[in-house]
Amino acid sequence: MTVYNKENMERFKERNKNRGRLLVSCSDQPGIVAAISNMFYSFDANIIESSQYSTNPEGGTFFIRIEFECPSFKEKVKEMKESFAEIASKFSMEWSLTQVSLIKRTAIFVSKELHCLRELLWDWQSGDLLTDIALVVSNHEDGRELVESMGIPYYYIKANKDIRKEVEEKQLQLLKDYDIDVIILARYMQILTPEFVKEHENKIINIHHSFLPAFIGAKPYERAHDRGVKLIGATSHYVTNDLDEGPIIEQDIARVDHRDNVERLKKLGASIERSVLTRAVKWHIDDRIIIYKNKTIVF
Amino acid sequence: MTVYNKENMERFKERNKNRGRLLVSCSDQPGIVAAISNMFYSFDANIIESSQYSTNPEGGTFFIRIEFECPSFKEKVKEMKESFAEIASKFSMEWSLTQVSLIKRTAIFVSKELHCLRELLWDWQSGDLLTDIALVVSNHEDGRELVESMGIPYYYIKANKDIRKEVEEKQLQLLKDYDIDVIILARYMQILTPEFVKEHENKIINIHHSFLPAFIGAKPYERAHDRGVKLIGATSHYVTNDLDEGPIIEQDIARVDHRDNVERLKKLGASIERSVLTRAVKWHIDDRIIIYKNKTIVF
Amino acid sequence: MTVYNKENMERFKERNKNRGRLLVSCSDQPGIVAAISNMFYSFDANIIESSQYSTNPEGGTFFIRIEFECPSFKEKVKEMKESFAEIASKFSMEWSLTQVSLIKRTAIFVSKELHCLRELLWDWQSGDLLTDIALVVSNHEDGRELVESMGIPYYYIKANKDIRKEVEEKQLQLLKDYDIDVIILARYMQILTPEFVKEHENKIINIHHSFLPAFIGAKPYERAHDRGVKLIGATSHYVTNDLDEGPIIEQDIARVDHRDNVERLKKLGASIERSVLTRAVKWHIDDRIIIYKNKTIVF
Amino acid sequence: MTVYNKENMERFKERNKNRGRLLVSCSDQPGIVAAISNMFYSFDANIIESSQYSTNPEGGTFFIRIEFECPSFKEKVKEMKESFAEIASKFSMEWSLTQVSLIKRTAIFVSKELHCLRELLWDWQSGDLLTDIALVVSNHEDGRELVESMGIPYYYIKANKDIRKEVEEKQLQLLKDYDIDVIILARYMQILTPEFVKEHENKIINIHHSFLPAFIGAKPYERAHDRGVKLIGATSHYVTNDLDEGPIIEQDIARVDHRDNVERLKKLGASIERSVLTRAVKWHIDDRIIIYKNKTIVF
Repeated sequence: MTVYNKENMERFKERNKNRGRLLVSCSDQPGIVAAISNMFYSFDANIIESSQYSTNPEGGTFFIRIEFECPSFKEKVKEMKESFAEIASKFSMEWSLTQVSLIKRTAIFVSKELHCLRELLWDWQSGDLLTDIALVVSNHEDGRELVESMGIPYYYIKANKDIRKEVEEKQLQLLKDYDIDVIILARYMQILTPEFVKEHENKIINIHHSFLPAFIGAKPYERAHDRGVKLIGATSHYVTNDLDEGPIIEQDIARVDHRDNVERLKKLGASIERSVLTRAVKWHIDDRIIIYKNKTIVF
Repeated sequence: MTVYNKENMERFKERNKNRGRLLVSCSDQPGIVAAISNMFYSFDANIIESSQYSTNPEGGTFFIRIEFECPSFKEKVKEMKESFAEIASKFSMEWSLTQVSLIKRTAIFVSKELHCLRELLWDWQSGDLLTDIALVVSNHEDGRELVESMGIPYYYIKANKDIRKEVEEKQLQLLKDYDIDVIILARYMQILTPEFVKEHENKIINIHHSFLPAFIGAKPYERAHDRGVKLIGATSHYVTNDLDEGPIIEQDIARVDHRDNVERLKKLGASIERSVLTRAVKWHIDDRIIIYKNKTIVF
Repeated sequence: MTVYNKENMERFKERNKNRGRLLVSCSDQPGIVAAISNMFYSFDANIIESSQYSTNPEGGTFFIRIEFECPSFKEKVKEMKESFAEIASKFSMEWSLTQVSLIKRTAIFVSKELHCLRELLWDWQSGDLLTDIALVVSNHEDGRELVESMGIPYYYIKANKDIRKEVEEKQLQLLKDYDIDVIILARYMQILTPEFVKEHENKIINIHHSFLPAFIGAKPYERAHDRGVKLIGATSHYVTNDLDEGPIIEQDIARVDHRDNVERLKKLGASIERSVLTRAVKWHIDDRIIIYKNKTIVF
Repeated sequence: MTVYNKENMERFKERNKNRGRLLVSCSDQPGIVAAISNMFYSFDANIIESSQYSTNPEGGTFFIRIEFECPSFKEKVKEMKESFAEIASKFSMEWSLTQVSLIKRTAIFVSKELHCLRELLWDWQSGDLLTDIALVVSNHEDGRELVESMGIPYYYIKANKDIRKEVEEKQLQLLKDYDIDVIILARYMQILTPEFVKEHENKIINIHHSFLPAFIGAKPYERAHDRGVKLIGATSHYVTNDLDEGPIIEQDIARVDHRDNVERLKKLGASIERSVLTRAVKWHIDDRIIIYKNKTIVF
């Protein structure tokens, strides 16, 4: 990690040492918010930001995200989790309660196109992307110079569909060794096996270079050009075992016209890809996303 | 009111007979959310949607909007307000608690440009704008046919700056007679006096045909053309006694280029004006807006 | 036609009595622009606006649109066409040369959703859509009141797939009787037969309520909701015999989120549909579109 | 210059050795296009792309941009310029005729905020920004490491308003030494003197961090936050001696809301600034811009 960034991270941890986040989903019913807020009150915690959503007033599903400040949070977090577990049990909740100061550890996978990787590294370096980028994995050598210049280890693992099994074994071992929480596929052009995906469920974020569900699969810009669309797009989504069918986190588009050939679509698209992926990653890092029925609620 | 719309409204009232909304702002401190949610719980009310924001974790201002369902709300609303008044007093809150089924009564003011009026009437007619449009006031006759064709009374009151006092007297009397909650200036090209504004504080919504604070005042499209901007915009804001300086509710823009003359800017702009004003009015009608220090929090 | 609009049209015709437009496509080669511009110069015509595009500098296809003023155009137009035919023959051009004052005659087809129809009528009424709306055809009665209130004939023709043949016979007869140049499918929910399409090739403009090629076919908003997209869109295209696969003229999108249910997607989408269709229709009316290999060049 | 980029540039020059561009403005009159296109035809040149615009059909100003391929252009360019000078004289044209293979030489000025500089360098490095970045000038040392890592000379010249004269003398000498065609102020936070501006008229491109004419001058994000705008923007313009009043080249905006504090506006804004400046610079580099009456025509 660069010295500059190390300082950023330390400052961030110190500033957020009492900051926590709660994510909850459960069947809707009266009394949920009261139970949660009473629990926080009993710990002297102050609710800083809270967003709630119900799929349906009657008999729907309830979702809430709360960001809070709790004095001496580090000392009290275990107790708070125990307290909350009782509420969660009563309401049959799925939930997570996280300490903001425990920064998530991230692996970036990349192939030959470096623009998304570069945007992530840049934002990380300037302190805007608050994660530990622990390593970069690639099936090409193109990104090595850039990545190593920032003091991040770069692992080249040759990959193709014939050796997928052994490639993924090496990758999974690295993810374990580096204790990784989040995997970002920043234009990594290999398909992952169901075993790989299962081991990191809801933790792999991909960028696809089209406005899904249009142009699923290979060569979306070529197909966009053939179809004569007037907008091109990019989509960031969680990876599932259905190719390009996982829960969509974010999408954006740019206007194009008849003068834009495939090469130009790729350049314009690169700019959308990098902003869409970066937004999606930041929301994930900030615990803003709940996955529900192959969709995302982004608070 | 047209028959079609009357049915819409009745259905809406019936569907929302138990629906309420709470808007609160106060100094931030622990226990606020617990106090509010306990109150709702004690009334068997279910929180359907809730959004909260604090200007600053420490010593800031706290804002919350809650939409809830309360069985037999109509019967309990008085009691709930009394209950809440105690909480409000304890935390020094500014607050409002409204019944969704009590539809707001609206007056639209317009001059010669009818596009914003037409968009509002259209949305009202199709049941998307859930307000009673009680009357339209104008200093021109242009809109009469359109307005009366929808069964809404149209009042022509000649206006200019020399007779402002007597004009406003007539207008204020009409607003009183019709028991108006919201006043929409849908391209009404007369300046209101401080007395008028004061009597309907935070209840007058204007559309200005520029992206404020650029091009405050008269002839914004002409000035945009002179300046050679590449974007034109529109701004909807609450009216205060500083011309075009009130709290901004919503803004939007459209891209233009060197080929667009003033006439074309006006046409493109008209389309932005009507969508920006309509969005702002809907948010106000839905009690989504809190005004704070000449800004808006839109939940 | 309403009196107000009739005046608009007459003023427009008078103002454009000497205005013409030339659209050309052919194999690229040196000398084309020189030949065309010399021809105009020989008629004392002044080129007002000109746009050109070549698919490829070497061996590509050349497209040009020229708008010009020619003194006594009405008297000279026949001669100019003869002159141009020689150039066209030499360069193997496809071309059209039109008089702006000969306003195109339009038929609008609609079913139960009236928002696109209403937007077109509104723009037509205010003089922004410079076409003769000669008739409206529908398989429902919903639009009759609106259409007839503007003095436009409304033809109800019951339609379903079992009686497609006889329905289209009636429709084709009407199009012939009214001497129609352009057919706008403003949310007309019936599929046209290849015979119908062929008879009005490149003259039928449809609005599809998705950002094609996503969600081709029925119920796009429902499917967009199921997929959890973060953007919804609309696409205007020329109708061919491949459903929703014709040349795209214009597309646009709006941002949505998890809170937007299908009903709300439809409302948001309606707003995009009407602006996308209106833009597409205006470009067609203004002779700005060249169709080439199932794509559009929009000048 | 990095090796990688050097190869890019050489390939670009080779590919464009016969490519030229003509920019013209003059009083509108018949025969202009014929004269120009005949001249090109006589040189066997093929018009690849052409855009034209007239301010007014009658008695307006005429603008055209033509991109063309001329066999053996390098050998014929002198002769072509002589030929065109006669036409230009006849029609009283302002014009420029450039060889695309003669790449423009650029100086970037920057202060402490590096995001715009970084975007330009990145695009330059990947071959998307086809200019020679000859040097970077700064009144701070912050950018040195980044710039020198790409093999570009970095000149630190301390600056403040008391020593403006001597600072600019050094800068002007550098611009002369490096034979600079274009100066990019990539968040350079010093005001230039009229003498400096005059010496490089229409060649200095600035990025201002607001949607001009809103928030002219210092601290635009702070003032945007105070005003409670719902959109922030950035503007790229040519520098004149009226602060932030020069011809606007490009603008763009991003949506913000009440939760975005000044720090966050700056981060969001940085992303708009870099894309707006990059687009503006590319259009200038590609000879797409004609300045006319303090506005730009961007073809």
